[in-house]
Amino acid sequence: MANIQAPGIEEIAGSVPFQKDAIIQKEYGRFLEDFVDGDLYVHPRAFTISHSFAQEYATTFHEAAPLFLSAPYAKAHGFNDMLVSPLLVFNIALSLGVQNNSEKAMANLGYYDVTFLKPVYPGDTLRSRTKVLSKKARGGDKPGIVHVRTICTNQNGQPVLQYERKIMVPPRGDRPASSSNIASTPDATFPEQSKPVIELPELPTLNRDVIEHTGRNTYFEDFAAGQIYVHRNMRTISDEHMPWTYRVGNTHPLHYDRLYSKAQSGPMSGEPIVYGGLVFGWLAGLASRDTAENMLWDLGYTEGYHTQPAFAGDTVGSISRILKTEDGPIPGTGIVHIQLIGVKNMLTMEAVQKFGEDLFIKENNKKDLGKEKIPEKIFEIERKLLIKKRP
Amino acid sequence: MANIQAPGIEEIAGSVPFQKDAIIQKEYGRFLEDFVDGDLYVHPRAFTISHSFAQEYATTFHEAAPLFLSAPYAKAHGFNDMLVSPLLVFNIALSLGVQNNSEKAMANLGYYDVTFLKPVYPGDTLRSRTKVLSKKARGGDKPGIVHVRTICTNQNGQPVLQYERKIMVPPRGDRPASSSNIASTPDATFPEQSKPVIELPELPTLNRDVIEHTGRNTYFEDFAAGQIYVHRNMRTISDEHMPWTYRVGNTHPLHYDRLYSKAQSGPMSGEPIVYGGLVFGWLAGLASRDTAENMLWDLGYTEGYHTQPAFAGDTVGSISRILKTEDGPIPGTGIVHIQLIGVKNMLTMEAVQKFGEDLFIKENNKKDLGKEKIPEKIFEIERKLLIKKRP
Amino acid sequence: MANIQAPGIEEIAGSVPFQKDAIIQKEYGRFLEDFVDGDLYVHPRAFTISHSFAQEYATTFHEAAPLFLSAPYAKAHGFNDMLVSPLLVFNIALSLGVQNNSEKAMANLGYYDVTFLKPVYPGDTLRSRTKVLSKKARGGDKPGIVHVRTICTNQNGQPVLQYERKIMVPPRGDRPASSSNIASTPDATFPEQSKPVIELPELPTLNRDVIEHTGRNTYFEDFAAGQIYVHRNMRTISDEHMPWTYRVGNTHPLHYDRLYSKAQSGPMSGEPIVYGGLVFGWLAGLASRDTAENMLWDLGYTEGYHTQPAFAGDTVGSISRILKTEDGPIPGTGIVHIQLIGVKNMLTMEAVQKFGEDLFIKENNKKDLGKEKIPEKIFEIERKLLIKKRP
Repeated sequence: MANIQAPGIEEIAGSVPFQKDAIIQKEYGRFLEDFVDGDLYVHPRAFTISHSFAQEYATTFHEAAPLFLSAPYAKAHGFNDMLVSPLLVFNIALSLGVQNNSEKAMANLGYYDVTFLKPVYPGDTLRSRTKVLSKKARGGDKPGIVHVRTICTNQNGQPVLQYERKIMVPPRGDRPASSSNIASTPDATFPEQSKPVIELPELPTLNRDVIEHTGRNTYFEDFAAGQIYVHRNMRTISDEHMPWTYRVGNTHPLHYDRLYSKAQSGPMSGEPIVYGGLVFGWLAGLASRDTAENMLWDLGYTEGYHTQPAFAGDTVGSISRILKTEDGPIPGTGIVHIQLIGVKNMLTMEAVQKFGEDLFIKENNKKDLGKEKIPEKIFEIERKLLIKKRP
Repeated sequence: MANIQAPGIEEIAGSVPFQKDAIIQKEYGRFLEDFVDGDLYVHPRAFTISHSFAQEYATTFHEAAPLFLSAPYAKAHGFNDMLVSPLLVFNIALSLGVQNNSEKAMANLGYYDVTFLKPVYPGDTLRSRTKVLSKKARGGDKPGIVHVRTICTNQNGQPVLQYERKIMVPPRGDRPASSSNIASTPDATFPEQSKPVIELPELPTLNRDVIEHTGRNTYFEDFAAGQIYVHRNMRTISDEHMPWTYRVGNTHPLHYDRLYSKAQSGPMSGEPIVYGGLVFGWLAGLASRDTAENMLWDLGYTEGYHTQPAFAGDTVGSISRILKTEDGPIPGTGIVHIQLIGVKNMLTMEAVQKFGEDLFIKENNKKDLGKEKIPEKIFEIERKLLIKKRP
Repeated sequence: MANIQAPGIEEIAGSVPFQKDAIIQKEYGRFLEDFVDGDLYVHPRAFTISHSFAQEYATTFHEAAPLFLSAPYAKAHGFNDMLVSPLLVFNIALSLGVQNNSEKAMANLGYYDVTFLKPVYPGDTLRSRTKVLSKKARGGDKPGIVHVRTICTNQNGQPVLQYERKIMVPPRGDRPASSSNIASTPDATFPEQSKPVIELPELPTLNRDVIEHTGRNTYFEDFAAGQIYVHRNMRTISDEHMPWTYRVGNTHPLHYDRLYSKAQSGPMSGEPIVYGGLVFGWLAGLASRDTAENMLWDLGYTEGYHTQPAFAGDTVGSISRILKTEDGPIPGTGIVHIQLIGVKNMLTMEAVQKFGEDLFIKENNKKDLGKEKIPEKIFEIERKLLIKKRP
């Protein structure tokens, strides 16, 4: 350690002339022209995740699985410690990339092939890096679509999450190029896997105390293809979403800067929009008590679309439709394939009764089918959960 | 550890037929018919409490006692670490039981014989279990009263809190029975104590630095029966109460789901009601600077009633009336018996001056005494604090 | 440990007579008469800072420097662990003193000579103590100015922060003297330094992974005197400011008690005002991505003034003007002297374009210069950052 004399802070502003020509406004994010197929970006910052942060995420977003709440319970299942909720890992991975990938984006188009590869524990430090898979420009001032793959790594450089995302990005046009981002570094580490492998503990024998931590009818055997779980309790989102945006690392002003939001035109104009990853988190959490409390692992997500935005004051709820069940890769487990639907400001049961089958049809397919989109529907995704069989 | 091939998530929702007859809406909580005298429920989930969560509770709820803020201070008093605030322990114990005990309840009627048995430290994991002491049905569609005892245990199975609660529960009537709850398990562990014993460290000699952590006139000798402490600072409750409901484990939608609240009739209708345990927390915290900063232990509570609900936007405050003082069970300590009263949207001093003696009469006794209830009064309870004598 | 019989809590309130003459309302803070030159106050309470609390502060207040987010990154720079953000340390030091120094104050007049002396790590416990440097009374019922120095120490008694503050305090007049405060203790420890020394690690060689944590154009060499960084993203402040006030230890009801606020007259009347230290935190955070992500140390602040209050719902933003750059005291570093300006409810670029040079003139000098004050300007301060040179 060095002991240095504090330089002190004498007041000098009055003696430094104002230079009108030295005004700088830094830009983050990329316009369409700034993405190149194959580009590889290592995103700035890293988050060391604490037990408290992980648990606060789990409770604020209504997670019911004790794996994300209790260290002894998680250890009884062969894990080293309480698990950090996969949706918090996903939110951090995506958010750390926003400054580069989507701070200029007009919309998040979809999530694909989200795969959680390794347990994340309190004390782990997460980083994020992204590769451009492809860019589709449509010419003129039309926005294009950028398709990226993002990998989240821990402090040992091991990948813990890999996923893809499509983003709608406007062309730069006359605007100045951004020089604030970290440049593409083609030689950087990017541990992507074409056939991802998941590292999981074997399931130990569970004693009575551990079994008493969860309900008796949320085991693998309780799920059957076709079942539609209408999750009763919903959640009113408050202004809390603004600090949570930055707490998971998302720098996009659309979610916390009312002046920015008011200056937008179209459906994004008005109050700050709730960052979609948080909406996803609440919807998954609201579904968890009925479907996920006996989960062992989140096997991932695909075809995830935010079909309407949510704002502070909205009340959101979710519905889970069981699409398929099959034996799991570890003895004592099964895989449940689920379609998760989110609605807002309408009771979940009312939505199912009013819209029936249409609620479960992808909004993007509605037009071709001659059907109307559902304004109360805010989210759709498919997911797979690894769930314990009844002990 | 096992390395398994990620199963991938192919999109299949479009190929799975919509089955209208497979709609399931799970129910939690119990109707009156679902409670049986002597039933014993082990509540799902468990919370590993972190230092940060405990301290955030203490600061958000305005606790002044350094025992809940500083590890070195708590250690200087013979504890192993910073103490988790008793009111956080109480809130978690009660909340973990809500899914079974009161998610169908119409009202929380009262808290009784709340006794904290053992220090809870950061890193401890809390669970909760409940026994039905008695059920009073009044027939027809009238709600009945269920009287329960709840025990909170740590990761070693040791009880850290025992208390009783009365809940107003509606009969099931034509509604379907809930099958979502963990069934009564009469042979489960239930370490209740008829004459509870509290485990406490002896009070060591305190050095000057430790003594300088607290005010000079909040020692045992400063309290005398009859004193009425009108705590000046009040607290405006914001929407923060919604996430806090789930952060302490409370699953009742009345506290965070505006659609649920709007669908209610009577005084519960409208905006989400602040979960009573949080109101209790703020009132105890607002009183703490004048009464509890030199506390060594919270000796418990009884006859606790939420006489009016609180909502986001309400400003709450508290008044403490000293009922009795006596020597404590550990050298250097005394017991102060206090009546804690909560009011809202009226200055605490104004409430004392306007209502005088009536503020301190139990609301349930008002009718028999020919007195009006006080709409601004939201809470009443009796408590005992173990407070240090002046060193 | 002692096992004591729980005393039980019998209900006795009904048997204890109401004593109207025993009403006590404790007062905190000091009136002008209660300050004496040279007084030394050791402030109550202490906060053991957790990793999670430090990181939540950093993210909620938009800090971009990985030193405050990632333990491995901080260790790679020679620190023992993730650093607690200097502005959190400042907020806690100031707030712990509020109960004594300013809970009766009418206004915070300014911050001076803020110097951070030593790294604060998760697990450290902070205390605060204050010396009265001088008091200026103007007679009659006019408020006076109290000039204090506050020192924040860690659990080893080592000073981690030293700063000065001027406070506008009303005379007591007919009001009763407060007896609730800890008295002046002239013989207490007060480790002030006239020529403060800062303890810092030497800067190790950084590997590529560490370098990839931050942007490429926020190194010392990128800054030049005269530059005006107009930070684009702003932050809408929500009701979150009320719990944050107490979370950093600030007990002044002006920031969380609507009844108190409504009872005030003048510009402080109405809704609770955001505690200035939080506003300062957001403004510094909003500036950090452009100016501070490659910082190694916060060399302090002076001439800091809150020129207008902020309320929940306000959107705040900041502008940094580079005043001077010079070599740093540690090889591989430089010092950047910055003027930080805060505005609200107006785009930062619009403020610079509309007010130009006037935005950077101290508001208190405006009158002498025949200039109007700027209502949208909420804060001004000078600061010095120790920033890494490009590796």
